[in-house]
Amino acid sequence: MKIARFRDGKRVVYGVLQGDKLVEIRGSIFSKFRMTDTTHDLSKVRLLSPTDPMEIWCPGLNFLEHLEFAGQVLGQDTPPIPTQPQPWRKGRNALTGPNDPIIIPKDSEGDVHYEGEAVAVISKNCRRVTPAEASKYILGYTCGNDVSDRTWQGKDWSFWRAKGADTFAPVGPWIETDIDPSELDLVVRINSDQVQICNTRDMLFTFPEIVSCISQQVTLRPGDLVFSGATGVTVAIRPGDKVEVDIPGIGVLENSVELEFDSKH
Amino acid sequence: MKIARFRDGKRVVYGVLQGDKLVEIRGSIFSKFRMTDTTHDLSKVRLLSPTDPMEIWCPGLNFLEHLEFAGQVLGQDTPPIPTQPQPWRKGRNALTGPNDPIIIPKDSEGDVHYEGEAVAVISKNCRRVTPAEASKYILGYTCGNDVSDRTWQGKDWSFWRAKGADTFAPVGPWIETDIDPSELDLVVRINSDQVQICNTRDMLFTFPEIVSCISQQVTLRPGDLVFSGATGVTVAIRPGDKVEVDIPGIGVLENSVELEFDSKH
Repeated sequence: MKIARFRDGKRVVYGVLQGDKLVEIRGSIFSKFRMTDTTHDLSKVRLLSPTDPMEIWCPGLNFLEHLEFAGQVLGQDTPPIPTQPQPWRKGRNALTGPNDPIIIPKDSEGDVHYEGEAVAVISKNCRRVTPAEASKYILGYTCGNDVSDRTWQGKDWSFWRAKGADTFAPVGPWIETDIDPSELDLVVRINSDQVQICNTRDMLFTFPEIVSCISQQVTLRPGDLVFSGATGVTVAIRPGDKVEVDIPGIGVLENSVELEFDSKH
Repeated sequence: MKIARFRDGKRVVYGVLQGDKLVEIRGSIFSKFRMTDTTHDLSKVRLLSPTDPMEIWCPGLNFLEHLEFAGQVLGQDTPPIPTQPQPWRKGRNALTGPNDPIIIPKDSEGDVHYEGEAVAVISKNCRRVTPAEASKYILGYTCGNDVSDRTWQGKDWSFWRAKGADTFAPVGPWIETDIDPSELDLVVRINSDQVQICNTRDMLFTFPEIVSCISQQVTLRPGDLVFSGATGVTVAIRPGDKVEVDIPGIGVLENSVELEFDSKH
């Protein structure tokens, strides 16, 4: 089942995708809901990020192929292979929806990269769960883009703006609740050119392992988002580009790229 | 004016402190509100953290006296004096209220320290403001404790659990809206022994400078919290301790310390 969050006039509602229609639901996607008789044309609604999370988590380096590149970005040697997830918080303010623009800050040096990732959606309060239990706390999966300003990533003490500037966390288009996250293909395209390809089978730590790890010290909440980590070497996106994160079986997260309007110049 | 957030039965309400009473208000503390005829005895309500923020910010090293100590914790040389704030996000999950316990995780090695700090409360959406403008976006000030597990702080790639474990962000007891933040005394006591003393005049970056810095790439929201950074050398807190962060003119944030109950042993 694919569950989308969207705007209908002033209301924010959830719907289940059926063909090219969204069937509005009543209740909570995290507990119980039922279909209503109200439907919306998918093409006519404004999709939002599938949840309004308290926190957005990333696992640290989670693909072997990304290690050497990450070392270069940080101006360091290739980091050792992590023996456990090294979670960090991506800014809640950075969250943005499908088809919304990724806005490159006007004071960025322009080395802003995509990182296409799969994203787990937490379904209920989750603390001190084992990896074996963790799947029961995941509602489903969606696509995410861990947009990263490589200059700030190398220069700052934390990722606060490198990966946390406004609009740097596109997530969507919806949550797929019936999919095996252990072997998902993922493709990123810039203007239809394929620039990243990976499969979640190459994650060093699986989603259940990452969720279990975070839950040891932190209570995860319904709607919280957990990114997979990214693979390989990435390239810059430019104003005017169209970026797609495509996970067959889930859907395509598409965002345009814009330069922040500088009202002072 | 002192504005507190508290629980009244199932309701969460705001009130203005008058003597030993809280006068309930109607409206939003961030825009317009008025007093009502409903009062509550301060001694009978359960105070909550003064806001329910989207993000909790800390400025990185912000007191010269903390530099050498921070280097030791991270297993590094004394860091250079920062030339700009180095913000990072303290976990939203970590937020806890006055008089609630700080819970030391059962898998901590026990080297968990207080860091008494002043905290600015954001009043409205804030993006690309100058330091001169920033004060207009601050509603007032409260007390905070940047609780820190020094072992995890030295070992992990980020502060996700070292400073972001559940209950590691006590904030309160209320917001003081009429106070000059540039010269606040701050004292931390453990079981009535004074263990930290500082003054906000020694902040390397003032609150308006920190808020301005964050706002360049990140939209701050009403209720967001911005910590001052901590000073000096700290010591461990232990189960059974009572920790107080006292800023004369604002109030005292008091929390007990407990060890996480291990239901499996």
